[in-house]
Amino acid sequence: MTSASAPSFNPGKGPGSAVGIALLGFGTVGTEVMRLMTEYGDELAHRIGGPLEVRGIAVSDISKPREGVAPELLTEDAFALIEREDVDIVVEVIGGIEYPREVVLAALKAGKSVVTANKALVAAHSAELADAAEAANVDLYFEAAVAGAIPVVGPLRRSLAGDQIQSVMGIVNGTTNFILDAMDSTGADYADSLAEATRLGYAEADPTADVEGHDAASKAAILASIAFHTRVTADDVYCEGISNISAADIEAAQQAGHTIKLLAICEKFTNKEGKSAISARVHPTLLPVSHPLASVNKSFNAIFVEAEAAGRLMFYGNGAGGAPTASAVLGDVVGAARNKVHGGRAPGESTYANLPIADFGETTTRYHLDMDVEDRVGVLAELASLFSEQGISLRTIRQEERDDDARLIVVTHSALESDLSRTVELLKAKPVVKAINSVIRLERD
Amino acid sequence: MTSASAPSFNPGKGPGSAVGIALLGFGTVGTEVMRLMTEYGDELAHRIGGPLEVRGIAVSDISKPREGVAPELLTEDAFALIEREDVDIVVEVIGGIEYPREVVLAALKAGKSVVTANKALVAAHSAELADAAEAANVDLYFEAAVAGAIPVVGPLRRSLAGDQIQSVMGIVNGTTNFILDAMDSTGADYADSLAEATRLGYAEADPTADVEGHDAASKAAILASIAFHTRVTADDVYCEGISNISAADIEAAQQAGHTIKLLAICEKFTNKEGKSAISARVHPTLLPVSHPLASVNKSFNAIFVEAEAAGRLMFYGNGAGGAPTASAVLGDVVGAARNKVHGGRAPGESTYANLPIADFGETTTRYHLDMDVEDRVGVLAELASLFSEQGISLRTIRQEERDDDARLIVVTHSALESDLSRTVELLKAKPVVKAINSVIRLERD
Repeated sequence: MTSASAPSFNPGKGPGSAVGIALLGFGTVGTEVMRLMTEYGDELAHRIGGPLEVRGIAVSDISKPREGVAPELLTEDAFALIEREDVDIVVEVIGGIEYPREVVLAALKAGKSVVTANKALVAAHSAELADAAEAANVDLYFEAAVAGAIPVVGPLRRSLAGDQIQSVMGIVNGTTNFILDAMDSTGADYADSLAEATRLGYAEADPTADVEGHDAASKAAILASIAFHTRVTADDVYCEGISNISAADIEAAQQAGHTIKLLAICEKFTNKEGKSAISARVHPTLLPVSHPLASVNKSFNAIFVEAEAAGRLMFYGNGAGGAPTASAVLGDVVGAARNKVHGGRAPGESTYANLPIADFGETTTRYHLDMDVEDRVGVLAELASLFSEQGISLRTIRQEERDDDARLIVVTHSALESDLSRTVELLKAKPVVKAINSVIRLERD
Repeated sequence: MTSASAPSFNPGKGPGSAVGIALLGFGTVGTEVMRLMTEYGDELAHRIGGPLEVRGIAVSDISKPREGVAPELLTEDAFALIEREDVDIVVEVIGGIEYPREVVLAALKAGKSVVTANKALVAAHSAELADAAEAANVDLYFEAAVAGAIPVVGPLRRSLAGDQIQSVMGIVNGTTNFILDAMDSTGADYADSLAEATRLGYAEADPTADVEGHDAASKAAILASIAFHTRVTADDVYCEGISNISAADIEAAQQAGHTIKLLAICEKFTNKEGKSAISARVHPTLLPVSHPLASVNKSFNAIFVEAEAAGRLMFYGNGAGGAPTASAVLGDVVGAARNKVHGGRAPGESTYANLPIADFGETTTRYHLDMDVEDRVGVLAELASLFSEQGISLRTIRQEERDDDARLIVVTHSALESDLSRTVELLKAKPVVKAINSVIRLERD
């Protein structure tokens, strides 16, 4: 959107004015948002320049008993609530995509600023939402959608606004980080570690969205959009989860001084045509233990940013949970409320760069390949020349005895993902290759 | 300042308008700011909504040759430059206190927004500067004043605006972190490590401001002000440097699974009268190696924040250097320029909490004491009862043979700093205590 089409500037309601809040959803996060708004009421009023006043809470079942909430605040009609004249900001903490999309769009169209924690919504429909916010000259905030309490949307959008971001790599899913950390520290296999994560409440009953990387892919789309001023949706993100990672993979990683993390990787690079392009992908990644992200353990999240002038930055903290997510939501509410009181708008969507989003095959990666091969003279030479014919140079080759066969662990130098994946197919077709045990990509320190 | 006294809201110059910049100072940081503004000109214009145009660069000696700068931009009259009608934003990267204070105040009074990287200026005169910015309804930004490229002022002020910050602990001085890390990793003593830091450009010819903690104290004052919504100046900060840290201290720390870092510690606590108070201090601190700050090595900086809802957060990156500092400065310039174009103001100083700043003696700390004592029966009991009489309970006591004497290493539980320091004086007066080798405070994981 160009700013020319935006309506004239709104100078704000003036200092001392109350700011009306509609809260959509009253689950773990919504309850915490309400608690913090109540508990910190006086402080927040000072920070905003006027008090926050909750006009209503939209829930799916009004009859469910909810402790400490005035019953008259509850409603099942979210659309009526957001339309109220005395509502200035709509806070969406429902989850899902289609229903919140409709309510949020209606809220923006009605001139309400929106704060959402909904990564799936933002990653799927950011363009539509941003356009609606721009047309209505209101704010759309979603700090809580990426990495919970960790400030990352704000720093990328504001603090690094004078720099050129080269890459953003993040551990953005606490469930998978907990599982991989458990595998790394105990030697347990994937199934047992997932069971432990479920038992402790770090994994949901259906863990698919987490372990298959879909949650991380939404966050990668949001991070890439902001970092590279280009619209990126979850569909643009290559996504591979952790369910194929074995105890043997973890052990091999440890032997080579590495650890395995599920990373969301967003980077700007120069493609074959010599033009700038961006890539956003989620996959298990081998990291040297000296890398700052390697020591992010348990369910913690961290975002590692490389920028031209700033160099390397890392943001670390709680990526999920009611209170941390509510902290991020309320930080956004204060920002949106300040603008409602004092006037002004936060930086909105920025898409001027509009860089091409590379297919995964066009990106440059490094492979760590674990194979069983025939244990006889000439096999190594045969496989090495296959790599060489495909234009892939090798960094290390390690061979181990294993029963009747030999185990071969190959680490490549960086090469086109399409060349690397084709090479793996060719390896599979070789009679001397008994099995490809694992293919894991690798990042350097 | 109450917002009631602020003049009416400025709606901005409108999309497409150029934003005039006056650059004060053209040293390492100023040169980099200029380079980035030139190199990223088109991108910055997109992010701002209008181009940045440098109106002039104030330097102390106009005759000095400066490559790649149009000579007509240079001036020795900073005051005339900032008064120019076509200047919207003044960027101060001179250093020092008194002269930049005068120019910055004049700029604010003339209705210019100011971006400064000058921690000493902000820590000494934040109240005066904030009042001037408020009165003129302009922005005063200083992200680069704390921890260089690491976004911390923005995240504390905006992202955590909905939360209650409990403490901020930071490694905010790269020189001292480089020296302590060198001592820790090589076993070298302080003098050799300082010499190495000087040789590699990590320490200045006169390292006093860094090694005695004054630089960190300025940053502690700024962090405490923002985190606790209270005016804190460098004079309010207890300050102790690293020049007394010996190789033996480092070795003893390692033996106990600790490392020594120079920390800026800002915390909110409940004082003896049961009231909220804040403390800001800088001193060498023993940290368990498992603490996230313990692994921040070389000249890197990191800020560790604990907030009620967000939990623990850490921000990590380059704390100094021309390009990283310029990145932070330019991020602020983009923010201030956006407001000049689109209207609105960034959150200004917030001092509503106005909490009492505790004397250092009123704060709670833990001591790690290394003493030489007489090696005979009854000494341990005599010293243990001295601690007990002073109301201090001990966490660990470790005794080692040393020549004719015994070396006693005592770690206390947390107690009032005044009780702890008095106890050390009483120990010194005991005939059985031959020497107090070191007293270093300790933080837990």
